[in-house]
This record gives sequence, structure tokens and C-alpha cells, in this order.
Amino acid sequence: MEDIFLQSVKFDGEKLYVLDQTKLPQVTEFLEITDIEDVWDAIKQLKVRGAPAIGIAAAYGLALGIKDAPESDFEAFYEYFKEKADYLATSRPTAVNLFWALKRMDARAKAENGKPVSSIKKLLIEEAHTIRQEDENVCSSIGENALSLFQDGMTVLTHCNAGGIATAKYGTALAPIYLAKERGMDIKVFADETRPLLQGARLTAWELMQAGIDVTLITDSMAAMVMQQGKVQAVIVGCDRVAANGDVANKIGTYGVALLAKAHNIPFYVAAPLSTIDLETRTGEDIPIEERAAEEITAGFGKSTAPEGVKVFNPAFDVTPHHLITAIITEKGVMRGNYSEELPHLFEN
Amino acid sequence: MEDIFLQSVKFDGEKLYVLDQTKLPQVTEFLEITDIEDVWDAIKQLKVRGAPAIGIAAAYGLALGIKDAPESDFEAFYEYFKEKADYLATSRPTAVNLFWALKRMDARAKAENGKPVSSIKKLLIEEAHTIRQEDENVCSSIGENALSLFQDGMTVLTHCNAGGIATAKYGTALAPIYLAKERGMDIKVFADETRPLLQGARLTAWELMQAGIDVTLITDSMAAMVMQQGKVQAVIVGCDRVAANGDVANKIGTYGVALLAKAHNIPFYVAAPLSTIDLETRTGEDIPIEERAAEEITAGFGKSTAPEGVKVFNPAFDVTPHHLITAIITEKGVMRGNYSEELPHLFEN
Repeated sequence: MEDIFLQSVKFDGEKLYVLDQTKLPQVTEFLEITDIEDVWDAIKQLKVRGAPAIGIAAAYGLALGIKDAPESDFEAFYEYFKEKADYLATSRPTAVNLFWALKRMDARAKAENGKPVSSIKKLLIEEAHTIRQEDENVCSSIGENALSLFQDGMTVLTHCNAGGIATAKYGTALAPIYLAKERGMDIKVFADETRPLLQGARLTAWELMQAGIDVTLITDSMAAMVMQQGKVQAVIVGCDRVAANGDVANKIGTYGVALLAKAHNIPFYVAAPLSTIDLETRTGEDIPIEERAAEEITAGFGKSTAPEGVKVFNPAFDVTPHHLITAIITEKGVMRGNYSEELPHLFEN
Repeated sequence: MEDIFLQSVKFDGEKLYVLDQTKLPQVTEFLEITDIEDVWDAIKQLKVRGAPAIGIAAAYGLALGIKDAPESDFEAFYEYFKEKADYLATSRPTAVNLFWALKRMDARAKAENGKPVSSIKKLLIEEAHTIRQEDENVCSSIGENALSLFQDGMTVLTHCNAGGIATAKYGTALAPIYLAKERGMDIKVFADETRPLLQGARLTAWELMQAGIDVTLITDSMAAMVMQQGKVQAVIVGCDRVAANGDVANKIGTYGVALLAKAHNIPFYVAAPLSTIDLETRTGEDIPIEERAAEEITAGFGKSTAPEGVKVFNPAFDVTPHHLITAIITEKGVMRGNYSEELPHLFEN
């Protein structure tokens, strides 16, 4: 398992290996799971996080869960299957990808009605592999497309974690970095720590180090100086949602980084799988911004670091207007501006 | 002592009251000090911090320390005085203001040679009061000058702590906010938490809350969004050093905030007492930038939040080029650009 450090969820036919992300970055530990209850627990306890990774874990979890399903006839099998699927769905009722993956497994089960149940069980393991592989392909294509914008020897800055451990492999914003590493190119990274939840420090720095990539951790407030000193030649970030005009919602702090990049004439790239592009959302102004608990800022790490009762503003995301985005990189190619016109083409066959 | 919350060091003739800044923001506690050993300890243990506040504490500490000095003749008195001054100087050998204040007390002692020692003791208490009052006057003048740029109802953003507790009273960047409050004006504040050491969260938010000023705490990465949403109409920060061309070195993150302010057409002000203006330093490029320990970033909250051994870049300051600074505000007035020509005039009589 040479590259397991890049794969937070991996199935070897017997065991499901799940990186316990709650222990990062201090401890790197893979759970070795053989039954559905432990998958349920891993999702519930956020040991697996990241929308694609949760979906993949659920698909494999369901495949594990039906190992002992009755094989006498399809109806008996399917009743058992449904029960296990419904059970897994209760692990994290807000995770859209969890339901999406379970639905896909369900459709496959029904589509194979007529085949021997023992074969259907194998085909459902195949379906889980396919779900995983498709996500890896998306990430890998984004990486290829992004890498065409990078040169050997470059240093790039990233914000938050749009990395491999949230996906099947490679991640989105970090995908070109991993591909470059695989090809022997030398691309270095500056990682913003990304307050308040420190995904940059805890996850991005960790996973890049695991892969032997040269990464330097900074506070968010140091990005401007790093650019001023010419230490980075590009910025690449992931995204939560892309509006029809190319405005991008992403982790709080992204908009500031985009402005700083502009001020230093540094290209600012957004890695966006098609699943994040929402043509129904006209502009960034139509994207609702979640505000989160004050404690994330005032006592984020087990210790109170601000006066009791202080007023706090804690938006989880911000919106970067399209004119600050040099290119949006999808699995189907790179768009440089003109997003209102280009984005719909991505969904044509 | 109605306004003691603004004064971190205060002497009532008998006791020296020193705000224990190491306990902020959880606990507001004033040490009540009657002997020089406790002043030494307060400086050594960083219970008093901020260059002006340290100088003031040292001057009062010396006045306390000579209470029991022999009064028979000046020589015996001065020997005792010198011994106490030398002792206090060992509390924090890198604090320039500590030595400056002790030197000023020494000059006063010698200047009064000939008067009865009992009178000299009183005059040295007067000298300490004068040192404190002069610093308050500087801060108050900066506040007046800065307030001329603000309007009632405004909200301003600040970075780090250039506040009252580091000075005799009022602080520098926060001085106009306090003056506005005293005059019944309504000026609200957004405080950047200021990673890595969180001076904004621990000190600025705390002292503004003590004074009943409306303050909202944000992470550094939220400043851009706050500006984008039109929530602030000005930025004001303190500074560590102003070069002859108006470039300003200040807490890391200041340069980024200046760029963000520029991008949103928000004025960016620097409060700078004359003591920080260094005409010997030609430009910001000549200001050496201290790099600090990685642990401030990787374990700043008492808990490790980054992978062990991660590479870290941790500059303590950055340099904001003069063209991003709308005005530099000193105790002698406001300069709007043209700093190379204007700054030397400040030092003419």
C-alpha cells in the first residue's frame, strides 16, 4: 500500500482502511474495519470527513454490511440490504454525499435483480470501487488541468484543505501538487493555517508532509508578506460553490487571499469539480453564508483566548467575485474568465 | 479610580497599582505594590508590558525603592539610589524604555543635589509622575489628531494592540476611540485577533470592553469580508518603527490589512508617536524583521495544532509601504503623504 497516505478510505476486498482524521495531525492511524457498525461509527464521529470521502466510505460500508445477507432469493436479500442502507443513513443525516452514495448502491442492487445474489454482492463491491474510482478520476483530471498552469520549481500558496484526504485521492486544489510530485517535478507549498478551525495547519500541512512535499506553514496574516517577498508564484484553492457568473464561495479568508494575489499580480486559481458548480445560483450574492459559534474563535483549542462575552463575527465562508479569479479549473478543462458564458458548456455532452 | 481600566500603571502616593497583563483576558487583577522587589518581579514576569508602561513602572518602582534611603547627606542617598536603579535595570535588560526612565530619574536626582534628601525623594516621585503624564499627553494628542479624521457613528478596524494598557493612558491607535467615548461619540471597533500571539483577542478586545466600547472580534482572515460588506469605514493601527520615507514596520498582518483597505477605498491610518519615527532608517527595506519560534504557530493555544516538525515561517513584523498609508498621525499633527519631506519637520522646534 505504497500510497495509502493519500487515500483516506481504501478497501482491499476484506478490510476497509479509514484514516482517523480526528487524531490528525498528532497521530496517523488507520482504522481497520470489517463490519458496518464500525463504518457507521467512523462517519458519525467525523473520523472520515470530506463529502466525497464520506460517500465512498458509505458505499464500502454497505458492501461490508451485506456480506451475510441471505442469498436464497432477491426479495430476502433486498430487505436485508435496505435495512443496512437505512441504518448507515442515520450516521450523519446532513451529509448529502452519504445519501447520494447509498442511493447509487440501491439503484445498482435493483438493476441487478435476476442475477444470483452471490453475484450481486460482488457487483455491489464493484459499484463501491467505481464510486471511488470516479472521484479519483475527477481529482486526477483537475490535477492534470491545473498542472498545465504550473511550472517546475514554482511555489504555490493554498488556503484551507482541498486535499486528498477529503476525496478518493489527490484532492482538488492539491491535486496538481501531488501529480507534480509523482512526476518528479519540484513544486513547493505555503499553507495558510486557516483560522478559526486550522484546516491548513492540521490537514493540508500534514498530508503534504506525508507525501514528502515541501510545505511551509504560516498564519493567514502572513500571506501578504510572503507575496511581497516574491516567495509564491500562484495561489490555488478549492471551493464550496461556484455561482453561474463565476463568483466562488469558499472557506473564510479566501476572498482576502484573492485580493492580495491581485495586488501582487499573482494568478489566483480555483479548483472546482463540476459537482460544486451551481448554475441555479446567479451570483455570489445569492449564496447564503453560514455564521458559526463564537467559541471557534474565542476558545478554539481547549483554552479561552478572548474575554468572556466578547461579541464575535464568525462567518464560515466568504465570496470571491469572479473578476479576481484568474482561472476556474474543472475536470473538464480550464476556464479563464468569461464564466457566465463558459460554465453552462461544461454540462453539455 | 473611575478610569483605572485604562491605566495599567498608577501610583496613589503609597501604592503602585499594576494591571497583571499575564492574566488577561480571563482575570482582571491589579497588583498592589509597595516595594521595589515586586516592581522588579512585575517587569521580569511581563505582568507589565508595552514600552511606555514599562518605563513608567520602573520610574515609580525606583521612587518606592528609595523610601528608606539614608537622608543624612546626598552621597549616602545617591549610593543607595544607584544601587536600587541598577537592581531594577536587571529586570528586563532588553527593554529600552526601562533604561530610558531610570536614566531620567538619575539625571533628576543629580540635578537636585544640594536640596534636602527628603525633598529630593518627593521630587523623584514628581519626576515619575511627569514621565507618566508626558506619555499620557503624547497619547492624548495622538488621539485628538486622529479623532479629527473620524466621524460620529463610524466603525473602525484595528490590528494587534496599540492600546491603553501598553501606555500611560489611551494608547496610540486606540486613543481616538477612547477620546470619542469620553465625549459621548459612538465609534465601534472590529478587532483582528492577530495571530500568532492573539494580542487583538486577548488585549484589544478586553480593554475596549472594559471601557464600554462596542467591539467585535474577528479572525485576521475575516477583515476582507468585513470590508467587502461595508462594515468598517477606516483602519487605524499602531507601529513599531517609521522609516524616513514613511514606510511602517508593525505587527505581522498589518501590510495585508493595508492592501485590503486600499482595495476597498477605506482610509488606512498609522498612529505613530515621535519616539517611533527613525529618520536614520531610510526605507522599510532597512528595517530588520525578527523571526520568532515555530511553536507560536504550531502550539499557540496550549495544544499542538500542526504536524510535528512542520516547516514554519514566523516573521514578527511586516513592512507597509508608505503609498498605502493614507495618513501618519503623531502627537504633533497629521501627515497625509509626502512623508520624506514632512517627517523631518516634526523634529524642528
